[in-house]
Order: sequence, then structure tokens, then C-alpha cells
Amino acid sequence: MSAQPLPSRHTAIIYDNPGTPSVQIVTVDTPRPGPGDVLVRIKHSGVCHSDWGVMTRRQGDVGPPAQAGQIGGHEGVGEIVAFGSETEQTGLKLGDRVGIKWMARICGHCLPCMAGRDGCCLNGTISGYGSPGTFQQYVLAPATYVTPIPDSLANEVAAPMLCGGITVYAALRKCGAKPGDAVIVTGGTGGLGHLALQFGARGMGFRMIALDYGDKKPFAEECGAEHYFDVSRYGSDAVQLAADVKRVTPQGLGASAVIVCTASNDAYAAALDFVRFGGTVVCVGVPEGAPVAIATAEPARLINQEICIRGSVVGNRMDAIEAMEMVARGVVQVQVTVQPMSSLMDIFDRMNKRQLQGRMVLDMSD
Amino acid sequence: MSAQPLPSRHTAIIYDNPGTPSVQIVTVDTPRPGPGDVLVRIKHSGVCHSDWGVMTRRQGDVGPPAQAGQIGGHEGVGEIVAFGSETEQTGLKLGDRVGIKWMARICGHCLPCMAGRDGCCLNGTISGYGSPGTFQQYVLAPATYVTPIPDSLANEVAAPMLCGGITVYAALRKCGAKPGDAVIVTGGTGGLGHLALQFGARGMGFRMIALDYGDKKPFAEECGAEHYFDVSRYGSDAVQLAADVKRVTPQGLGASAVIVCTASNDAYAAALDFVRFGGTVVCVGVPEGAPVAIATAEPARLINQEICIRGSVVGNRMDAIEAMEMVARGVVQVQVTVQPMSSLMDIFDRMNKRQLQGRMVLDMSD
Amino acid sequence: MSAQPLPSRHTAIIYDNPGTPSVQIVTVDTPRPGPGDVLVRIKHSGVCHSDWGVMTRRQGDVGPPAQAGQIGGHEGVGEIVAFGSETEQTGLKLGDRVGIKWMARICGHCLPCMAGRDGCCLNGTISGYGSPGTFQQYVLAPATYVTPIPDSLANEVAAPMLCGGITVYAALRKCGAKPGDAVIVTGGTGGLGHLALQFGARGMGFRMIALDYGDKKPFAEECGAEHYFDVSRYGSDAVQLAADVKRVTPQGLGASAVIVCTASNDAYAAALDFVRFGGTVVCVGVPEGAPVAIATAEPARLINQEICIRGSVVGNRMDAIEAMEMVARGVVQVQVTVQPMSSLMDIFDRMNKRQLQGRMVLDMSD
Amino acid sequence: MSAQPLPSRHTAIIYDNPGTPSVQIVTVDTPRPGPGDVLVRIKHSGVCHSDWGVMTRRQGDVGPPAQAGQIGGHEGVGEIVAFGSETEQTGLKLGDRVGIKWMARICGHCLPCMAGRDGCCLNGTISGYGSPGTFQQYVLAPATYVTPIPDSLANEVAAPMLCGGITVYAALRKCGAKPGDAVIVTGGTGGLGHLALQFGARGMGFRMIALDYGDKKPFAEECGAEHYFDVSRYGSDAVQLAADVKRVTPQGLGASAVIVCTASNDAYAAALDFVRFGGTVVCVGVPEGAPVAIATAEPARLINQEICIRGSVVGNRMDAIEAMEMVARGVVQVQVTVQPMSSLMDIFDRMNKRQLQGRMVLDMSD
Repeated sequence: MSAQPLPSRHTAIIYDNPGTPSVQIVTVDTPRPGPGDVLVRIKHSGVCHSDWGVMTRRQGDVGPPAQAGQIGGHEGVGEIVAFGSETEQTGLKLGDRVGIKWMARICGHCLPCMAGRDGCCLNGTISGYGSPGTFQQYVLAPATYVTPIPDSLANEVAAPMLCGGITVYAALRKCGAKPGDAVIVTGGTGGLGHLALQFGARGMGFRMIALDYGDKKPFAEECGAEHYFDVSRYGSDAVQLAADVKRVTPQGLGASAVIVCTASNDAYAAALDFVRFGGTVVCVGVPEGAPVAIATAEPARLINQEICIRGSVVGNRMDAIEAMEMVARGVVQVQVTVQPMSSLMDIFDRMNKRQLQGRMVLDMSD
Repeated sequence: MSAQPLPSRHTAIIYDNPGTPSVQIVTVDTPRPGPGDVLVRIKHSGVCHSDWGVMTRRQGDVGPPAQAGQIGGHEGVGEIVAFGSETEQTGLKLGDRVGIKWMARICGHCLPCMAGRDGCCLNGTISGYGSPGTFQQYVLAPATYVTPIPDSLANEVAAPMLCGGITVYAALRKCGAKPGDAVIVTGGTGGLGHLALQFGARGMGFRMIALDYGDKKPFAEECGAEHYFDVSRYGSDAVQLAADVKRVTPQGLGASAVIVCTASNDAYAAALDFVRFGGTVVCVGVPEGAPVAIATAEPARLINQEICIRGSVVGNRMDAIEAMEMVARGVVQVQVTVQPMSSLMDIFDRMNKRQLQGRMVLDMSD
Repeated sequence: MSAQPLPSRHTAIIYDNPGTPSVQIVTVDTPRPGPGDVLVRIKHSGVCHSDWGVMTRRQGDVGPPAQAGQIGGHEGVGEIVAFGSETEQTGLKLGDRVGIKWMARICGHCLPCMAGRDGCCLNGTISGYGSPGTFQQYVLAPATYVTPIPDSLANEVAAPMLCGGITVYAALRKCGAKPGDAVIVTGGTGGLGHLALQFGARGMGFRMIALDYGDKKPFAEECGAEHYFDVSRYGSDAVQLAADVKRVTPQGLGASAVIVCTASNDAYAAALDFVRFGGTVVCVGVPEGAPVAIATAEPARLINQEICIRGSVVGNRMDAIEAMEMVARGVVQVQVTVQPMSSLMDIFDRMNKRQLQGRMVLDMSD
Repeated sequence: MSAQPLPSRHTAIIYDNPGTPSVQIVTVDTPRPGPGDVLVRIKHSGVCHSDWGVMTRRQGDVGPPAQAGQIGGHEGVGEIVAFGSETEQTGLKLGDRVGIKWMARICGHCLPCMAGRDGCCLNGTISGYGSPGTFQQYVLAPATYVTPIPDSLANEVAAPMLCGGITVYAALRKCGAKPGDAVIVTGGTGGLGHLALQFGARGMGFRMIALDYGDKKPFAEECGAEHYFDVSRYGSDAVQLAADVKRVTPQGLGASAVIVCTASNDAYAAALDFVRFGGTVVCVGVPEGAPVAIATAEPARLINQEICIRGSVVGNRMDAIEAMEMVARGVVQVQVTVQPMSSLMDIFDRMNKRQLQGRMVLDMSD
């Protein structure tokens, strides 16, 4: 079913030479949706550092390299323009705005899926890596797995939330803290961290504490943090940093949870210093390079204070819906810059030089 | 209140020269219970490797050394022979049999206590380390914190359960597995491990898998294990071991939980190989020597499979009651050897030479 | 895909005159599976009292009447004989044995589905009521929603477990009791109750207490109950009954949970007398006739003891898998009588006269 | 230990003729604290409708009548002026401000206490009913059970929170809703309800919906409600009310939880109409008169939608601390009127005539 004539070809950005930073804007066939699928006309697609990782991954790195011709992107928002068969029950209508996220498709019936752990699906595919992604004008997606976009939420704001927003929402949901508990975010003003502060402080009733490098107290407070610590002031004095952080937590015992949004092994090692008895360190940021164990994850230490270290990969379908609703209610504000499709490589370049403020979104409309 | 004349002096075993393996049997004053306390006539006291640790700990080791004259022991069972004031409400009577465990006393009102984490109490004292222990004939204990011993449970069987039994019960309770799930115990035939197998298999409905060194399959199965793996057959081939272990778990994905009862850094590193998506590794055994991080506790690994590593120190008051009831129902069998007080150093010696079978208990009655 | 030639017609039992107890054995077209579906050759189908309810329901009863020609049955076990498209990912093979249960099909994406509450699915269909059921030789079913039958489990044993077994398993899973806690089953020797006793006692580590009418202590104990109470001995003396039941619970305070398997308003009223502070009454049995409030569900009573009353409808997909695995392991024994298809009305007749022992299963093979 | 000379006598309000509404201001001996207790100089004591209930309760009512001479009150705030023995470990100091609440004292070691259900303590005493209450200038209290009052919280604001504030905090904590879920408060602008709205909306991230009689939308919104329904507009049309309420909940399915703060049997009956699949109705308000079952608590209804009805009596020690911290942070605003001790009967009178706005607090200082 389709309301308007669908094009036969559309514009897409491909990784023409995976393993190197190189993209090409090409024209590809516009597919028609099969059973269970919808065709989404993408209006905006966020650009995430994971896209860079997928593009440049080489044989020997963690995970296989992308295929030549892979269409990237996993933060896509658009409108449904056609339905395949077997999609009636979803209640979706032509023109409904939906989002496509990191997990493009899950099987829904493996043990991880039944446990609500979409990111561990044994048969899942990743948007822009295992399946054609959202850096194109039309993309297929399962009718039961797209994320509805609330009416009050603009496409370009929804797009970047589909990755980082959902990820930190899910991590906070698993952190074991109760409303009123102290929760620390390391990397608190970064791309993930500043969203975590807002979801935690305004959406979940946590008392947020932010750590990051540099003089970013005003921004952290704007995001809802009650306290900010500039880690760069402490040099290598981890003991003093931990003492100062603990001082602002209940009875000076430490936080109930630490969300590690920093992709840094040092941040992981430090996180255990901030958490109190029975508390949880949630791993979110993935350090680059060869895997390194968390330097302070010593059994005696975990045992004596009954500490928990927990990994959280991405949110599931329900997390996606809930996170989007919170954003639509204004719980979370995000600074978004919209650029044309042609600027993707430039965005990656500035991202790697850490010149970006807020989140970058491609306008896919023409 | 006291039913019979209390002695003025009684026999005790002291660490006369802490930092060295040396004990002395002496006579000490028999105390009278103050407000909130009872006086317990100890009949049996288990001997645990932690007692050796307390005795021989020196300045510079983890934790301060014991005081000269410290009376050791933390697995004591006996009868209440006198009540201090403020103890009426407990409903305890003269002659009631009670147990004294690692945590001799907790404050009951600090944040960890209110969270049910007795082992993290900010004001707690440890039996046989921070307060006079159960290697003596009479010991004071808080009326509200002694563990009632069920009628059907013999003193000498109850005694060793007060430490190892409660510890593994609490660890299993926190492991996140559901009845019917696969749970692995590393060190499965050891002092802690063989209790964990029994509590898990017969008391909680888990499907237990044991790992240990040597040909101990019959004993592991007797304890309720469905599968046993002799780690020594694998040499350094951790990959093959993990593959074989996973093969016997649901869909070959790994166990829902691993309880690490081995005090070995290698066992901790291996544990993460055995656990499935969303699973939990519970840290129980404390490796000796300088603290070492769990070698496989890499953020990416924890994140991708949403794995949790969790420390569990000792059981709380409720765990103690519940574990004792399970033992009294016959869920757990333990092999106990009773020896006179004078044999403590000999027991330590054989313990260090790994010559012991089952648990050793001192007869404190004369 | 299909290994053998499929028939064009097969035998089925239809409700030819819904609202009256009347069935007819007819020949119907054998369907071919569409996208996402498999065709199952049914070997055995259990007979449940709910089938009678569906057949005889009239306009004005709870729920709409069945359609004339409705094929009943919701406890079907058979082999997959053909696959529709879009079913590859399930890993199912021709000849795999699978089960079909009360919920024949769920949408998988509504809020209840995402919360794991299959029985509340907004778009679900019920086998033998909303869709053609298992009282026929070939039935369509969703590839992702059939329940795999473990190898060691015979068809005729698996069949009745697909309804009652899963239902009580799910109820026990929600009852809030911990291993070692006392759990009461009212109607403990009935069709649901005797399964609940076995799942609870042998599969989940609960200490089960059974209540029922008549001298059924030996059977209850065989099913794992530690205590049995013959309710008929108490006449209308609910106070004495409650006192006697509580006496065998920990400290005489009552059970942690009561599973009400009896379809009786009196049983519901009594259940609240048996539960202790913070305990849970799980509603499973549905009293016939006009709905009646639980007579003792008074706010003050629920408040003072912080009691919870909770309804549990049917198990979800994961419950089904887990329950079947427990049965395959021998946790649960069930007495099954196999009869030819032609005996359905006779079975209903004896069921209504309470002349049946154990569960009745139809042989659908010819 | 005491910083200043303690008086030998002090002023108290007694129920001189329990069963009738009659109080007398008298002078009583000032006690000295025994082991474990502190003496608190009460500065302010809130007046709660439960005090009226205790005073006027007669033989034959629910619960025994109060003793003649009973000193009432259970919302007391003051300063510690003397310590008994065995109180050092609490870390409390002379002059520390603390609160005394409904549960004056719990044993701390019975099964309910170990489960954190203070209100079900088998040995507990109730302030102003089982033990001398806070309608006096000096009162004894257990050092480990008084509630610390945060510095920023004025006595007269803290006082009424010690009963209603903690009660609704605890009820919300048990309601099973997640941040972002819809939670309904019936009686939403009343003494308990308006606190529940504030704790839920600003402290816990719930989306609150208020129901009450009359045109109180502005006040409900001020308290954080997103929607308000004037029940009086619906007369006896419960169906229309339920339909309108559900319309503002996610997908029109109903709220995740309903907190019944109204002491009305009708409100309880209606509550089940507002809750969605898997949702929870929390019972808080206690209807007066003979106990009446919740009229809609029918098994079939609870089963089909897997609904839970749960009683919550009062908060525990930890709830008290957490609720007070939330109030101190400004999450909750309460309108307080301070009156002299002599006005207690007048306050009761206006309370019964429903003439009061906000909470009434007695100034106990002279």
C-alpha cells in the first residue's frame, strides 16, 4: 500500500572503500517493502561517531569490516510511505513518523530478545553496518520495530536521540539507583553524558553529579547536575578527586551509581572509587584500541563493598518509546545542527578534531 | 537473668603473637552481659581459613593486624546462659541454642544496615578479630543478632554453616538466576563450592554445573551438580574449556550466573567466558596476595553481552536464618570432623597442606 | 517448504452449534502456511475445561459466543510439516515437535507484549476460540510463537502441560516468594493445583502446603506438599482452618504466598486468612457465574499487613519454554489418559461429572 | 549525658476520657533516657486525623481504646537534650533535630522488621497510642529510630511530613510504576493526596493525574498533576469517568498505578477502572466504619488484566529519611499553620468540619 508514486531510484551515501575514511553520494534502487516491512522516507539522519567506526574498521579490528557499498547511518527519522503485507496489525498509517536506530531489526524470539535485551539478539542486524542504513532517502524497516516519533518532537531533534538518548536512558534504567539517590556521570558534558544528566535529573528523580574535563560547570548545571567536578584540576591525584566527589554524596559514602559515558580506561578505573556499598558502575562508553580490563575491578574490592559492574549496550524497543516520550515532554534538550548530505565527511572531520558542539544531523530531503 | 551459676573464668584460645602462626590456651574472665546482650556457652566452633588469615596478618597486609591476646573464631554454636537487660523482647529463653557468625555485631541503623548489607555495616565488629571470638567457652553476643539454631540441627553441623553456608547462600541469592537456570560454581568441590552446589540444586531450583581441579565428578554429582568439568585436563586451553562448558548450557549460550568460590585470579578471569548475555558473575572467593583486577573485565565485553560482575561479602541476619532452615531440612549435607580445642594449630597446619576433607569443628565443651 | 505431500483435506472437530454442548467431526481444507507461519501436524491435543466453556458460551455470558464451525482445542502437540516464507530465522526444521497453547498468536509489539504479558496482548488470538484450534489434524501457527517440545517429553504428556502447566508455572513465578518460603495452594490436588505443588516444591524450592476437599493427603504429599489440610473437615469454621494452616508456617505468621487454583469465591475469601505480612495472594482459578468481589479484600486488612492480591492469566512464551523444560527434567509428573477423537463429548461429560482422574488427551493421528 | 539541666516536670496534653473527644493540659514527670534512648525536647507536633481516631476509639471499634491519661501525637520534631547509655554509636549529638513518627519504636529483629516492613513489626509501639506521644514537651525515643531532620527543613514543616509525607512516599515507592509512567492519585488534593502528587511528579518522575471532588484543578496542577478530574461532575456515571481518565493515559489503556488516598469505599471500587494491564492499585486511605470489601476486586477481572491490589501501611525508617531529604530539597511544598497547644480541640473540631486548609501544627515550646 502506498499513497503516492514511489521513486525507482534515490540518493544514498555509501562507504565506497571501507577501512578508509571515504564516502560517495550515489543513486540506488528504491526497494519495495516485503512482508512485515515498511518503507520509510528518511527526512533527517543523525551522525554518530559509531558511523565513523563502521566506515574505517579494518580486518583485524574488533568486528568485521563493512562491505564496500555499505550505506551507513543509524539515527534516521522519516515518514512511512509504503507498507508490505502482514503489517496491518501494527496500526501504523501512511505518513506516520518513525525512527530507525542502531538495532535495525531483531528476531524477537531468541533468548536475549525474550529477555528484552535487543542489543544481544542472536539474529539482529545493525543499521548502517549489517543492513542498509539511514544515510539514504528511502529505507526498509520492520513495521513492528520502528520507533514512533511523538507529534511534538521535530525530526531533527528526534534523530540524534535514537542512538545516544536511548542508550543513556537504558543505562540509567539499569543503574539500580532509586529516586533521590546520587548518580554520577563521568564524561558528563559529552555527547552521551549531557543527555544522561538530563534524563536522570529531570526524568527519573536522581540527584546527578557530573565529572568532565574543563570548566563546564555552567553547562552541567544547565543539564540538571547538582555538582560538577573538573577532572583536569586533579592531574593524577585520583585520591583527592575521589575524596572530593564522595564529600557531596549522602553521608560521604559515595554515589549509588556511576554511569561511565567516557570512552576512557582511566575513567573506568576511577569509577569504582566513586561508588558506595552496594552501588553499581554502568559501562556505556567503549574505549578505543585493544581491550583493557578495568584496572580497579579487583575481587576483594567488589566483595567488601558489594559493588556491581554492569554493561549496558543499547536500549530495547520499549526503552526507545519511553525515551522519546521523555524528550517530547521537554525533559531533555539537545543542541542540533542540520547540514546537507554532502557535508558528512566534513562533519566526521570536525568530530575527530573535537570541534563539534551538540549533535550533527543530515538533512536527507533532497 | 541466669539459670545456673556462671563461672568466673573460662578457657579460651588466644593469638598470643599476631603476625605469626601461634596460639595459646589460656583462662580468661567470664563476662556478664550488659544491656542488649546475652552470654552464650559455646559448645562447638568451626575452624575457617579466615581465622588463619586474621592470626597471621601483619602490618602492611590488607587490613590491620589482630591485637595480641585476640580470641579468634567466628563459627560458634552454643546455649544462652544469661541475659543482660533490654533483651526481653527477643523472645529468647535460657538454653536456646544460637549461633555467632563473622559479623558479631552490627549497628542496625547505618545506611548499609538499613539496606540489609550487614557485611558493609559502618560500625560492625567481626567475631574473632574486632571482638572476642568463639574460640572460647563463653562469649557475649547481641540478643537481636544471634542466629537461632533449628532444633533438628546438631551443633557441630550448624557451626561451619555459620560462615561458608551463609556466605554461599547469600551469593546465590544475589546471582540473578531464576529456578531452572544454569548456574556454574568454580571451585565447586571445595569448602564453599560444595555447599553452593547443594543450596543451589536442592534449595533453589538451579541447574548446577561444577568446575574444579581433579577427578571429583562423583562428589560434585552427589552435591547436586548436573555436570562437572575437571579444569586440570584443559591445561591453559581456556578457549576449549569455555566451549565445553557452554555446550551443556541452554542453547549453548552460557550460564545465567557463575559463582566464583575459588580464591584464584585465574578463576575470575575465566568466569566471564562461561556467562551468557545478561548474566552475572558473583565474586565470593578472595584471592590472596596483592589485589589483581579481573583480567577479562573489559568494558566492551561487559557492554556487548550486558554482563554484570557483583561482589557478595557475607550473608545478613535474614540470610543466616534462611540458610540454617535449609540445612535443617536436609537440603545441605556437610562432612564434619570434631576435634578438641588443643588441636587448632594442627588443623591449621593440615588446612594449609590441603589435607582436610570437609569442615573441622572444635569441641569447646571442656 | 514441505518434506512430504500435504493432504488437501483433514479431519477436525467443530462446535456446530455454539451455546449448546455439541460437536461434529468433519473434514476441512488443509491450509498452506503464509508468511511467518508453519503448518503443524497435530498428534495429540489435551482437553481442558475451558474448551467446554468456549463451546457452550452464549450471548450474555462473559465473552462473546464462539462462531458456528469453530474448531476448538488449545493444548496441541505435533510436528512441523511445512513452512511459510519469512520463517528461516527461527532455526526450526521440518519434523520439529512444537506445541500450541491458549494464546495462539500475539502481536509482539503492543504495550502488554513488550511487557511480557502475552495474555493481555491487544491483538492476540486464542486457539480454539478466536482462531482454528488444535482439535484437528493440521493447524497453522506462527513460527516464532510455537513452543519447542524437549526431546525427552512425550507428546501426550506435553499436551496438557501447554495449558495448566504453564499457567501455574507463571502464577508461581509472580507470587513473590523466595526459595524456602511457605507457599499454599488451594485446590491443591486438582487439575491445576497438583501441578502447582510439583513445580513449586521440586522446581522452585518453595515449601508447599496443599488445601483441598477430601482425604487426599497421600496424593498431595506425592506432589511435594509438606502439609495437607482437608477443608471439608472444617465445615464453616474458617477461623479454625486459618489457625491450623498458619501453625505450620514460619513462626505461625502465615505463608508468603497463596496460589488460588480453586474456581470458588469461598476459596478466594479464605485465602487472605492464610497469608502473612507482605505476602501475595495470586488469583488463578476463575469462579463461574456472575463476578463476585473477594469478600475479604478490605482496604484496612490489605493495608495493615501490606498484603498484595495479584491476578495471573496465562504464561508468556518464555514461561512456556521454561515450564516445558522443567517437565522434561522430571520435576512434574502428570497422569494422562489418551482417547480417540470421537470421545471428546464423552470426556466433557465425565469432566462435568467430576469422574476424571488426571488429564485427558485426544489422539489426533487418524 | 545532657547539656543543660533537665526539668523535672513538663507540660503534656492527655486524653483524659478516651472514647470521648476530651483532652486536658497537665504537667507530667520528665523521664530520663534509659539504655538506647534519647530524650527529645519537642518543639512542634503536627495534628493528624489519626490522633482524633485514637482519642475517640471505643471498645468495639477496630483496635482497643486508648488508656486514660494517654498522651497523644505522632508528628513530633524537636532537639535531643539527653542521651541514655548505649547510644554512642548512632553519632547523634546534643541539639540534633530529630523527628518522631507513627511507629515510635520497632524491635528490629522480627520477620517483618527484617523485611523492612516497620509498620508490621510484631513488637512495635505507636506514638501517642501505645507509648506517650508528641503532644508533650519532652518525649523518650530510641536513638536508632528517630528520623534526622535536614538542616534546611523548618521544624513546623517537618512535623506534618512525619506522618502523611512518609506514608505517601512509601506508597509511591511500592506502586510498581517506572519514571515516565502515568500514576493516578484519588483524593489528589487532600491531606495525603496533594503530597503524593508532589513526591510523584517532582521527586520520582511519574506523570501524575489527580482525581478529587470540586474545582481544584489549579491546586492539583500546582502540585504537579498533568491532569485533574472533578469527580463530582460525573455523579454516578463511573463508566464515563473511567473513560475520560483513561483517555489521558498512554494509548488510552489506563494508568500504571493508582494511589487511593481517599478513605472511601467508592474510591476503592472505582480505582480498578483506572488501571491498565499489569498495573497496581495501592491502598492507603482507610475507610471509616465497618470494613467493606473492594467492590470490584473480582478474580476474573484481576486475572484478565493481571492487576495487583496492594496495601501500604506506613513508611519504614529508610523511607522516612528519604522522604525528609526530598522535602528538604524543595520537592514538596506544604502549607502549615502553627497554633498554640491549647488549640488542639479547636483544630480537631475544624478538621471534622473540613474547614482546614493545609496541615495544623502545635507549637509545643511553652
